[in-house]
Amino acid sequence: MERVTVEKKILNENDRIAASLRDRFHEQGTLVVNCISSPGSGKTLLLERTLERLPQSMRAAVLTGDIQTDNDARRLARYGFPVQQITTAGACHLDARMIEKALANWPSPELDLLIIENVGNLVCPTSYDLGEECKIVILSVTEGEDKPLKYPGAFHRSRLMVLNKIDLLPYVPFDVAQARANAAAINPAIEIIETSALSGAGIDAWMHWLLARVRARA
Amino acid sequence: MERVTVEKKILNENDRIAASLRDRFHEQGTLVVNCISSPGSGKTLLLERTLERLPQSMRAAVLTGDIQTDNDARRLARYGFPVQQITTAGACHLDARMIEKALANWPSPELDLLIIENVGNLVCPTSYDLGEECKIVILSVTEGEDKPLKYPGAFHRSRLMVLNKIDLLPYVPFDVAQARANAAAINPAIEIIETSALSGAGIDAWMHWLLARVRARA
Repeated sequence: MERVTVEKKILNENDRIAASLRDRFHEQGTLVVNCISSPGSGKTLLLERTLERLPQSMRAAVLTGDIQTDNDARRLARYGFPVQQITTAGACHLDARMIEKALANWPSPELDLLIIENVGNLVCPTSYDLGEECKIVILSVTEGEDKPLKYPGAFHRSRLMVLNKIDLLPYVPFDVAQARANAAAINPAIEIIETSALSGAGIDAWMHWLLARVRARA
Repeated sequence: MERVTVEKKILNENDRIAASLRDRFHEQGTLVVNCISSPGSGKTLLLERTLERLPQSMRAAVLTGDIQTDNDARRLARYGFPVQQITTAGACHLDARMIEKALANWPSPELDLLIIENVGNLVCPTSYDLGEECKIVILSVTEGEDKPLKYPGAFHRSRLMVLNKIDLLPYVPFDVAQARANAAAINPAIEIIETSALSGAGIDAWMHWLLARVRARA
């Protein structure tokens, strides 16, 4: 009982901060996406492909969450956009206060696009609103088509599923149609884009999806 | 502060139950392994390969944790050993009380080998002692060789790393030597076995490792 009560208080407090972040992002016309996936789904490489294709005139930035190491931040910083690492020191997810704090440190607060790369974890990040416009779940084909059913929270709460690593489809037992059906069973409104961040397949469709939403916000 | 205090209380309570489970497993000569990995690392297929090779005379059983669905339990139940699903209903890890409760429901409590398949999550399950002899972390080569550094808890606390899906090495950018070095940097004593549950490569070495430990317990 006590645990549940404390969890509720934490989530209420998180929701309050997230709501204030969301107001701020709305006022400033910033599109914020919160990217959630298992470790090793290819999130960081997908974001590298994204940053290298963004117009340099765009005011974009990345917040990347990791339990340890700043590997991802260093990889992402090569593309000319500001990148800030949030090291969670053991915590299994980002929360709204971490985002608020990271933004307070930022020299240029007015952005067109803020990409949040959550901690690699298909479970816990799902429960924490970060003030984002939408969550995006990245599933790689090596993980199995059953994952939307086994981890429904992430798929239920995401507007888009990026089905990544499709270059590996010839080598893994993965049924794309079944994966799509499983995602739709959990979330009938979910959009799905198939990509390979490695080969570049589908990256055009993903960029089109993302940039249309940035423009809608401006 | 409040949150940390409650978490400590929960972990203390968990450790108390885990210690009593460990005593029981010792008395009964049961080897218990706690398998931890990301979603989609191939844990369940590795366990299928394991169960199909276990001597039918062995008193073995599996507890498998999932947030939703009993897919894994159904897959594992085909091999003639008792399998029990623990559906965590949202919780991101198994805890010792769940194990205690599952064992209380079991008709045949005396086992040679109990395999626990934790919830697919490389972060949270690491903190919960389940009374096991050892943790085993499964990393698939599709996840990237940096994972021991990014998720050090799981690798620090595991006796063995199973490096799975090596059949995919020709198709993914994965540096096996670097992965081994990263795991050793976090845990110099960690043992490493390379496997492909799909092709069967390395399964002999894994079975040898496991069965030697079962025999040592008997």
